[in-house]
Amino acid sequence: MTSQISQDQPDHASSSPMTKKVTRRSWVGPIPIGGGAPVVVQTMANTDTRDVAATLAQINSVAERGAELVRVAVPDEKAGRALFEIIPQAPIPVVADIHFDWRLAMLALEAGAPGLRLNPGNLSDPDKIKKISHKAGQQGAAIRVGVNSGSLDPRMAQLYGHGPEAMAQSALKELSLLEDLGFHNLVVSLKASDVRLTVAAVRLLAERTDCPQHLGITEAGDLETGVIKSAVGLGVLLHEGLGDTIRVSLTGPPEAEVDCAWEILRSLGLRSRGPEFISCPTCGRCEIDLVGLLKEVKNRLRGLKAPLKIAVMGCVVNGPGEGKRADLGVAGGRGRGILFERGQLVGQFPYESLAQILEDKARAMAGEAKT
Amino acid sequence: MTSQISQDQPDHASSSPMTKKVTRRSWVGPIPIGGGAPVVVQTMANTDTRDVAATLAQINSVAERGAELVRVAVPDEKAGRALFEIIPQAPIPVVADIHFDWRLAMLALEAGAPGLRLNPGNLSDPDKIKKISHKAGQQGAAIRVGVNSGSLDPRMAQLYGHGPEAMAQSALKELSLLEDLGFHNLVVSLKASDVRLTVAAVRLLAERTDCPQHLGITEAGDLETGVIKSAVGLGVLLHEGLGDTIRVSLTGPPEAEVDCAWEILRSLGLRSRGPEFISCPTCGRCEIDLVGLLKEVKNRLRGLKAPLKIAVMGCVVNGPGEGKRADLGVAGGRGRGILFERGQLVGQFPYESLAQILEDKARAMAGEAKT
Repeated sequence: MTSQISQDQPDHASSSPMTKKVTRRSWVGPIPIGGGAPVVVQTMANTDTRDVAATLAQINSVAERGAELVRVAVPDEKAGRALFEIIPQAPIPVVADIHFDWRLAMLALEAGAPGLRLNPGNLSDPDKIKKISHKAGQQGAAIRVGVNSGSLDPRMAQLYGHGPEAMAQSALKELSLLEDLGFHNLVVSLKASDVRLTVAAVRLLAERTDCPQHLGITEAGDLETGVIKSAVGLGVLLHEGLGDTIRVSLTGPPEAEVDCAWEILRSLGLRSRGPEFISCPTCGRCEIDLVGLLKEVKNRLRGLKAPLKIAVMGCVVNGPGEGKRADLGVAGGRGRGILFERGQLVGQFPYESLAQILEDKARAMAGEAKT
Repeated sequence: MTSQISQDQPDHASSSPMTKKVTRRSWVGPIPIGGGAPVVVQTMANTDTRDVAATLAQINSVAERGAELVRVAVPDEKAGRALFEIIPQAPIPVVADIHFDWRLAMLALEAGAPGLRLNPGNLSDPDKIKKISHKAGQQGAAIRVGVNSGSLDPRMAQLYGHGPEAMAQSALKELSLLEDLGFHNLVVSLKASDVRLTVAAVRLLAERTDCPQHLGITEAGDLETGVIKSAVGLGVLLHEGLGDTIRVSLTGPPEAEVDCAWEILRSLGLRSRGPEFISCPTCGRCEIDLVGLLKEVKNRLRGLKAPLKIAVMGCVVNGPGEGKRADLGVAGGRGRGILFERGQLVGQFPYESLAQILEDKARAMAGEAKT
């Protein structure tokens, strides 16, 4: 087969329209999950939940960064008691992460938790699930059935191995149990540390339930590798229309998880928050300090919420093209830069003034005064 | 629709077998691209090519990091002349990146370049392409037709817009020109800074040619955002079996591009290099300094080439599960850790000794003496 030019192809795929799988809608407090709602960004606190001040400080910090939901571990009664102080003061809904002990779920609900995460691998006794769901139903709280390949129900593993089928079955069993009890405010997740396993499991589950899905690659790793595994795995699934809420799991600060989650959603055009920067990799053609300029502009515009597209490019090969299609663009030349504003050439400016000019223009576009 | 448990589903999707699109095979020096060869990792030097020493130093550095091909910019004759010194001393094949001036392509070939990258957006005159391909053919050099949405041939943009169709047509036109001249040692790439546009363009092209594809998200951004965009875009494409060689473009050091490329390939089980670390995100259940332990173990094992899977986990919820399925695994508890070796419980060890024990075990498994 040699390469064929065809003259009659319409530009049908230009915006690569992703077809979102429509799930039913659940609610975690005031936050809708699924049913066509935007993909919700969540994270998990890594403080000791018993330390109310530290946990609240971190929740405030991740909320400021764009987390819309936050989960906290509830490993013991003292952590459960801390929820009575944490939940009413938190700026975003707090989901209690429960393992093993059903009484901690009851305690979290008493504290007003708008959501619980239950792991069917270690909490699946029908009597206990019944008690939890009854109380959650009374309060309008959501339950996430959160399966993790690292803590799979041994009976499921025995029946179905450690693959996607065992993960899906483990979730479906607990979902059915809850639904049969008349409880429907559900979210489900299947997480593995292996990207392909996660992708296969989520796809399988999506064929069998319209329950909204929470996506994540678990134990993804540190900032270097975890970001990449999460971006690949969540990227594949989101791009094919799966996923109603996401968490990026990193061995690192939860703020980094939130930033990464937003970047993944932005990269697929699903949501945006703050300016997007297009910048070239720099090569032997680059004649300005592009890394320095980009860093300077990003710093100056940190916190700006308008979703502007800003291109900071090093040379005249791709610079003008990218620059013209961005809201603001600079194409570098020797010691200077050509500025574009919404596709129009504005002029040439010396390198030293570029950061200031880009900041001023961006703030003007965003309609915000410099703070 | 409520959630259905089905009892008769085989574990068919367990390893999520990706079907690789089979392309024809091209060669850049001794490196096969396509035709079933492993996905090749490449990067681009960002030194001034005219500075031979700096460029060679960087090429050696990226080769050590795992780059299998490297591209250098050839913006002028002096850079072209530098290739006469760079190419014979480089440990990996050097591809000359040519824009605008066909004579620089001829010069690069004279210098022995095993590959050229030509941009149809600024070099498509049939007479010039004929001269270049004739000489490249004589020398067995490869040509990559590298389309970039930022420097699209204006005639193609006029005919087809700025979407995937225009990008694909631009490439197909130049590929056909070369193939009609009897030149077949080709690679093709369609890069955009927009992930969805890149994905759509690459898919479109894959339907119309069996020429091996080089993948990249261009002008992806800096280390924070560029890594994520590249991982999402290349992840989606590689997961569906497209792509024969990849470059991660970052506004940053090319060494980081190489690391990121390997992590993307590893995350999809396509290739591996060195140990893979599974580590949990730490939460309120974590009772050891997991971030510190992970960093310590990674540092101790840097440079180890054996593809071991090492789980460093903070607690007993998912720790034992992940630990058992890794080559080596630690599940943390209060001030100590439980060690697993190939699924077998080895014993409990104090926190302070864990890094040393993991290092020793990993080196023993890798059959390497401590250096």
